[in-house]
Amino acid sequence: MESGGIRPPAPFRAAGVHCGIKPEALDLAVVWSESDLVAAGVYTQNRVVAAPVQWCRQRTPSDHVRAIVINSGNANACTGERGAADTETMARWTAEAIGAQPEQVLVMSTGIIGEFLPMAALEEGIPRAVAESRSDAAALEEAARAILTTDRVIKTAHREVTLGDRRVALTGIAKGAGMIGPRMATMLAVILTDAKLSLESAQRLLRAAVDRSFHCISVEGHTSTNDSVVLLASGDVEVCDSEEELILGDALTALSVDLAKQIPADGEGATHLVTIRVTGAPDEKAAFRVARTIADSPLVKTAMTGADPNWGRIVSAAGYAGVPLDPDRLKLRLCGVPVFEGGMPIEFDEVALRGVMRESFELPVELDLGMGKADCTFWTSDLTHEYITINAEYHT
Amino acid sequence: MESGGIRPPAPFRAAGVHCGIKPEALDLAVVWSESDLVAAGVYTQNRVVAAPVQWCRQRTPSDHVRAIVINSGNANACTGERGAADTETMARWTAEAIGAQPEQVLVMSTGIIGEFLPMAALEEGIPRAVAESRSDAAALEEAARAILTTDRVIKTAHREVTLGDRRVALTGIAKGAGMIGPRMATMLAVILTDAKLSLESAQRLLRAAVDRSFHCISVEGHTSTNDSVVLLASGDVEVCDSEEELILGDALTALSVDLAKQIPADGEGATHLVTIRVTGAPDEKAAFRVARTIADSPLVKTAMTGADPNWGRIVSAAGYAGVPLDPDRLKLRLCGVPVFEGGMPIEFDEVALRGVMRESFELPVELDLGMGKADCTFWTSDLTHEYITINAEYHT
Repeated sequence: MESGGIRPPAPFRAAGVHCGIKPEALDLAVVWSESDLVAAGVYTQNRVVAAPVQWCRQRTPSDHVRAIVINSGNANACTGERGAADTETMARWTAEAIGAQPEQVLVMSTGIIGEFLPMAALEEGIPRAVAESRSDAAALEEAARAILTTDRVIKTAHREVTLGDRRVALTGIAKGAGMIGPRMATMLAVILTDAKLSLESAQRLLRAAVDRSFHCISVEGHTSTNDSVVLLASGDVEVCDSEEELILGDALTALSVDLAKQIPADGEGATHLVTIRVTGAPDEKAAFRVARTIADSPLVKTAMTGADPNWGRIVSAAGYAGVPLDPDRLKLRLCGVPVFEGGMPIEFDEVALRGVMRESFELPVELDLGMGKADCTFWTSDLTHEYITINAEYHT
Repeated sequence: MESGGIRPPAPFRAAGVHCGIKPEALDLAVVWSESDLVAAGVYTQNRVVAAPVQWCRQRTPSDHVRAIVINSGNANACTGERGAADTETMARWTAEAIGAQPEQVLVMSTGIIGEFLPMAALEEGIPRAVAESRSDAAALEEAARAILTTDRVIKTAHREVTLGDRRVALTGIAKGAGMIGPRMATMLAVILTDAKLSLESAQRLLRAAVDRSFHCISVEGHTSTNDSVVLLASGDVEVCDSEEELILGDALTALSVDLAKQIPADGEGATHLVTIRVTGAPDEKAAFRVARTIADSPLVKTAMTGADPNWGRIVSAAGYAGVPLDPDRLKLRLCGVPVFEGGMPIEFDEVALRGVMRESFELPVELDLGMGKADCTFWTSDLTHEYITINAEYHT
């Protein structure tokens, strides 16, 4: 297994094991530290919230977290009081294995909604995962693999920044391929750093990073009950002033964008990653709404699938985003080629553009609203036969 | 050709011809009357609006309309000033053929966005369509066929109501199969009646009917640039008082629901019609938002395709509708079977429910929010391989 050699920052230990929630694949991950961690979290905006999300929301930000335990194959959502008790039990078993209190353990779950967790499997698996945990790249990769559901590939990212004479490491793992809507997705991410951050800084930096990354991706626009992004900071490396914090924040955003883009790129059945850049918006909210509406249109997505420069679908999607826009001021470029401006089509070499769309994996859509200075970049998948196959047959 | 014998109300003449916008199929319809008509209209809420929609918006409600001309194969959208001039020319040619003024002719277009209309074809076709127009059922059917794009079947509906000793007829034709989002769709409908209505009554009754019908359907949630519903009333039959108007309004709503449901039932690639009934909402807007969000979720749609009682996708879609709801108060029934209540799954015979879902064309989803008394019924298609094939290959 090749992980590109991404290791967790020094104080963290990780593991991914198979405990039996899924028939065969790895399905249980643990990441933990011998000493207290600062933890920040950003969670789904769905009103129907899975038990582990409720557990984590009540416990972040915090400065005494010790571990996070994550299972795949079962979301523990729509499971009522029994689901809440099961989440607490997962935290307790993890705490017992590492010598901590249940309140010091965060929990994530992803997978099928509306079924109860197989607790016997977890009771056996959790102490084994803790016992097997290590600080090497293979351990991080196993953890990254154990949180996947319909994903085809593991998702990891790494950044290092220099603050004065110090080096800070940022390492992230994520999962997500379907049920991915803006305002996050069935998307889990855990970002580890050895930086020393206050509760407030950790929460603020994570929120800013998520707003420009995990909030700006979709596969089919369905916001999950389980979305969670957690930042765990060990405090080994000092961050001395607000300028250094800014540098760290930029690195955290860049790492988050890196991880986030990997999700629609691995979107269920995806054959293209569509990058939608909206500029010239009156404000960021408007830019986001237009970008998201284009991203979520199945007509836009299927045009991308078919390498079809059917730009009318893009313009008409922008038109129903609920943002007051003037069609005569719009400028649209598709894979760098101007196709619509001043309310009229622009002639272009259609055969050439089709060829570019067919050959390229990443398809840029650039729409200038001509109204202001705000912008948004949003990433989505195309919509293919394979998506239908996966989702018409993925069982409850 | 079997039209179920639906004829236009007496004073109306209709025709559908092939003029050459499409390679072979009928592509031009005219409906007109020798005397002035009261006309009401409801149009797309897209900010990018096709030239014919701009034309009609400025001319309804009106009490001196004489005709409507409709082409398929080209939406005349995103075509700027030249598109506006082309719409006016279509109205002028129709007016010349029937002996009226251009201002008395409404225009609809549907089809590809961003290409200019082939005006030579229309110049030849419009007078021919008028010359061939008749009042029989076959003529109405040809008109209904000439407005189709990716539709598989024509869409017509008929109602008669008795007001005292008088009989009022309501006859509608519609098209739509893709680019169908709430707030209407690439959806055209023309409803004809011999009732006598004031401008205000016609507009009010149409708006009320549309709110409960054409506004409550989707195929993939993409709101078109061209959606239009027009009511044309000849005034041959008196409507004496507000009670009679109420009866007529109910019939108009019933006819509109009948026509509207035919659109997702014929949705591109659809194998199921999904009927989403949300009750117990605090207000109608909330009921609509929840119903629409469920309807537009590709995960819900693909579960229906696969006859999979994956109710977690329905509950989680409701949860991100932007309506404050309490998961513990939700009650969900799928094809009449209770599956979720009190925040917990309800055990059900999954094999039996799968069988019902596989065998039934219409799949009812009933969600009680447990918060109030408002409701909404919303109709949508499932999402199939055939939808992808149609939309990844339908050309610009």
